Amino acid sequence: MSDAELSELPESHPRYLSLRTRHRIEEGVEKGITSKQGLIAEGRGEAFDYLLGERTLPTADDAARAAAAHLLLARHPVISVNGNVAALVPEDVVELAAVVDADVEVNLFNRTDERMQAIVDHLREHGAGEVKGLNGDARIPGLDHKRAVVDADGIGDADVVLVPLEDGDRAEALAAVGKTEIVVDLNPLSRSAQTATVPIVDNIVRALPNITTHARDLAGRPREELEAVVETFDTAGALAEAESAIRGGRLESDAESDPRTNGERK
Amino acid sequence: MSDAELSELPESHPRYLSLRTRHRIEEGVEKGITSKQGLIAEGRGEAFDYLLGERTLPTADDAARAAAAHLLLARHPVISVNGNVAALVPEDVVELAAVVDADVEVNLFNRTDERMQAIVDHLREHGAGEVKGLNGDARIPGLDHKRAVVDADGIGDADVVLVPLEDGDRAEALAAVGKTEIVVDLNPLSRSAQTATVPIVDNIVRALPNITTHARDLAGRPREELEAVVETFDTAGALAEAESAIRGGRLESDAESDPRTNGERK
Repeated sequence: MSDAELSELPESHPRYLSLRTRHRIEEGVEKGITSKQGLIAEGRGEAFDYLLGERTLPTADDAARAAAAHLLLARHPVISVNGNVAALVPEDVVELAAVVDADVEVNLFNRTDERMQAIVDHLREHGAGEVKGLNGDARIPGLDHKRAVVDADGIGDADVVLVPLEDGDRAEALAAVGKTEIVVDLNPLSRSAQTATVPIVDNIVRALPNITTHARDLAGRPREELEAVVETFDTAGALAEAESAIRGGRLESDAESDPRTNGERK
Repeated sequence: MSDAELSELPESHPRYLSLRTRHRIEEGVEKGITSKQGLIAEGRGEAFDYLLGERTLPTADDAARAAAAHLLLARHPVISVNGNVAALVPEDVVELAAVVDADVEVNLFNRTDERMQAIVDHLREHGAGEVKGLNGDARIPGLDHKRAVVDADGIGDADVVLVPLEDGDRAEALAAVGKTEIVVDLNPLSRSAQTATVPIVDNIVRALPNITTHARDLAGRPREELEAVVETFDTAGALAEAESAIRGGRLESDAESDPRTNGERK
């Protein structure tokens, strides 16, 4: 699908987000943003989202609201961006960062200077101001050298981090140093989802704008009210509902009409 | 993982096949065999195989045996090979073709001369003799021009086709022209699996050698016995068991120890 074809599609089209996702992932490869591992991870996400029915569960919406409250309450919130996040939702990252006054930091599992720069450039093209991550002057304990690199005045200093599509080892290491961790992951029993303070089991293309909507709604409310949103979020209940939805989900209903799980073709 | 590291791993290692898969997919990209869509499809397959428990169900084994019987009974069996099949199981394709006396034909959803040639070369490096697909002098009705291309003396003439990891549109078109179709697909409700005479819901790295084992066992048996294997295979039962296994599967057990469904990292 070309830019021109995509731009002709109304956002209300039922397959708009999945067609845009496909387009952006391919563009991400061309720009050197999306890695081979990123493409495979995208496929895993597709399968889980397909089983989930490609919808935001009520508990995932609760999680997005709790995430918004955490980000607004934070002393120093940081949104961690990897290749797939940058390729799929660059403008949503920029918008959320503005609404909750968060830093944006590029953080790659397979870090190379070229990919770091390509992702920083891509975010700037989508309106980002300062983008952290290039300094790499601090380390998260408990990870081997290459995986541990962060900015001292970014994730290194953050009290709340939003880490969408994060690797399990890193999610655990960030939680171990006491950071409040918000994860977006479509597998409710992945280590990332299990480790997070707030696991959002949802597709990132739906989850990120949803957090922003909740943040706009909650901004300016009294601290006690935000704290109540945080307190009442039921982590275990959200994970259980997601698991049950994936088990009982779309596989039995309209799967036949969806070609996306077949063979070589997406 | 390098060739050297992989070659040091015993085949009995519990993660041998998945580590080999990862290595081969990456090698496939480097050789121009595996496409972007192929990497995403690999990710979808990983998620379904993870839910299935990365094992061959008894009904998938029955399906592999029925497939072997169909191939042995065929007037002209053809094994259709796309990018992922070539990258993942080239020696298994060659071996099965020899045991059941089948043609091997390269057939790509995204056909380019470069990829066709790279895949033919890759199969030859793994011991293939004649590899069909380059002529492209026949068409399967019901598909648009580019997707319909086959060899007249290959898939065009075949009565039984093994099409692992096939696109749903093409699986339907091949069934519509009356060919007996054997599919390998990890989603039991994909159109490919639903359309197939014999759907093998299993990972191709397990399914292909398994068909070969059954073919060796069945070779030389009386025609009536092979026909009985074909007749007694329960397509609907196999699909139902696979669906139930995926729903009730690994998500609840040891998913936490498996990092492969997280984020950017494979």
